[in-house]
Amino acid sequence: MRTNRILTLASVCSVGLSSLHATDPLPSWNDTAPKQAILAFVEKVTRSGSPDFVPEPERIAVFDQDGTLWAEQPIYVQLRFALDRVKALAPQHPEWKRKQPFKKLLTTKQDQRVAVTEQELVEIVIAAHAGMTTAEFEQIVADWIAAARHPQTGRLYTDLVYQPMLELLAHLRANGFKTFIASGGGIEFMRVFTERVYGIPPEQVIGSSGKTRYEVRDGKPVILRLPEIIFIDDKVGKPVGIQRHIGRRPVMAFGNSDGDFQMLEWTTSGPGARFGLIVRHDDAGREWAYDRQSAVGRLDRALDEAPSRGWTVVSMKDDWRIVFPE
Amino acid sequence: MRTNRILTLASVCSVGLSSLHATDPLPSWNDTAPKQAILAFVEKVTRSGSPDFVPEPERIAVFDQDGTLWAEQPIYVQLRFALDRVKALAPQHPEWKRKQPFKKLLTTKQDQRVAVTEQELVEIVIAAHAGMTTAEFEQIVADWIAAARHPQTGRLYTDLVYQPMLELLAHLRANGFKTFIASGGGIEFMRVFTERVYGIPPEQVIGSSGKTRYEVRDGKPVILRLPEIIFIDDKVGKPVGIQRHIGRRPVMAFGNSDGDFQMLEWTTSGPGARFGLIVRHDDAGREWAYDRQSAVGRLDRALDEAPSRGWTVVSMKDDWRIVFPE
Repeated sequence: MRTNRILTLASVCSVGLSSLHATDPLPSWNDTAPKQAILAFVEKVTRSGSPDFVPEPERIAVFDQDGTLWAEQPIYVQLRFALDRVKALAPQHPEWKRKQPFKKLLTTKQDQRVAVTEQELVEIVIAAHAGMTTAEFEQIVADWIAAARHPQTGRLYTDLVYQPMLELLAHLRANGFKTFIASGGGIEFMRVFTERVYGIPPEQVIGSSGKTRYEVRDGKPVILRLPEIIFIDDKVGKPVGIQRHIGRRPVMAFGNSDGDFQMLEWTTSGPGARFGLIVRHDDAGREWAYDRQSAVGRLDRALDEAPSRGWTVVSMKDDWRIVFPE
Repeated sequence: MRTNRILTLASVCSVGLSSLHATDPLPSWNDTAPKQAILAFVEKVTRSGSPDFVPEPERIAVFDQDGTLWAEQPIYVQLRFALDRVKALAPQHPEWKRKQPFKKLLTTKQDQRVAVTEQELVEIVIAAHAGMTTAEFEQIVADWIAAARHPQTGRLYTDLVYQPMLELLAHLRANGFKTFIASGGGIEFMRVFTERVYGIPPEQVIGSSGKTRYEVRDGKPVILRLPEIIFIDDKVGKPVGIQRHIGRRPVMAFGNSDGDFQMLEWTTSGPGARFGLIVRHDDAGREWAYDRQSAVGRLDRALDEAPSRGWTVVSMKDDWRIVFPE
């Protein structure tokens, strides 16, 4: 009886394990080198007894957002949000007609590109939202993201996320990784939807941020958004933001542009097994094709240095079976 | 056979559950009102179908450190660390002999109190460590905390943590809470030991911080600590730090001084079930007794307002069976 029970339990376990192995965790990835590299890396850092084993608390993976987790063409989603907000608020700010970067936003049509730097983007977003509480801002973003549609595809922005990356996030979490976003976008903007869309809770989002102030208004405490930028989470800012927020060097980093160079460099320069990956936008048919000359998501130096640094480069065209969720 | 197996599995499960129920999760707490309030609150926010149910991702609990998780008398642990560092570095900084707050540190004996504000403390700590990398700083703290002993008790500082609070942290985590530290102490100082001592990983530590810079030295990237304070996580800074780091209002907050007032206020003013608790130092025999007049951990306004705000006040003397781990 005792032996029987043990055998029965063992066979249940073995069925469970083999069906786990039979399921492809990355079905939207073609069976090319990047998928193999990801699976092999995760296996070697999680297998007990592996020389590359990484204890679970140290399994930190950081992801850029724009162009890495969701589409960033023709303009950053948050820039579109800011454009809508600036237009809505313009009657209360007559000075914006003469002041850059607001002037160029107000004279730009819905489907036109606007050349703004990442720094200008943050300035616009923060200036357009000064004087409101964090709770009010969250509500505005929530309302906007629930309805705003991409000008060319007509889809919700939150539907223009990369299916292969959603699978990758889930695969990493299933293997004990904590997944973080480290993006140049505004931290409070992203937090409104990252949990629902990516399964990433607000406390695992790192982004650019403005100054805030705690105050009690008529007995009710609020946190007020002030018109001052205190941190830009881009380029050399990314490792700084990662250290401040996580306090531990990531084991894996995923990006798509030169804005992610230092995040990839910092991550992959650590001791032990490390993994860096660049999503290359080379699929004009299903997404967009752009790299060295692009004003949005420019990829130049990181592409040149990827081979010598051992970073995996993913071709959207060749390595992804599916781009967006169907 | 099949029935037998199911019965056997069921009895295993039921033994497991009943032994779980029979185990007191807070054995170092006396069976007084605070313990009952904690257990009742956790039960009502975690029981499925409860009108006060809080979904797991929203179960955020924030803890002050000094005086709430470990002893802060006769001086903050980090001030003792800074004192040791300032003395070690003094030969390289002749100007400190004439400059406050360094001057008073250099002329203070090991077992003497030094009156410094929380702001001065942060200034000292950051100034004493400018120009080194985050990795170098971590090593210095790790070496110090492994050896430094409390001047009066002779125990390691990390042994002067409150056993009842360790049990509380574990009980909350067992019930799906994420536990965070939100302390006026330096974020990088605390992170060196919070995982080992409290089970709180570095990414769940919020604290005061200095400016840092990413740079590549001889091909090796480092994050450099600069002599500029950019955030003080005390008083009105606590809700600001919590919002910046977590992006979600906590459900439970634990403090011991007026420095925690706004954290408690912000937490307990949210909608739905909320819990605020103050550890009161009234046990001169086993710990220290201090409140309204103390230079360290002054507790005045928060004590006055606790009843009207519904905050639980813990008397170390009456409510804790054990103070420090044995």
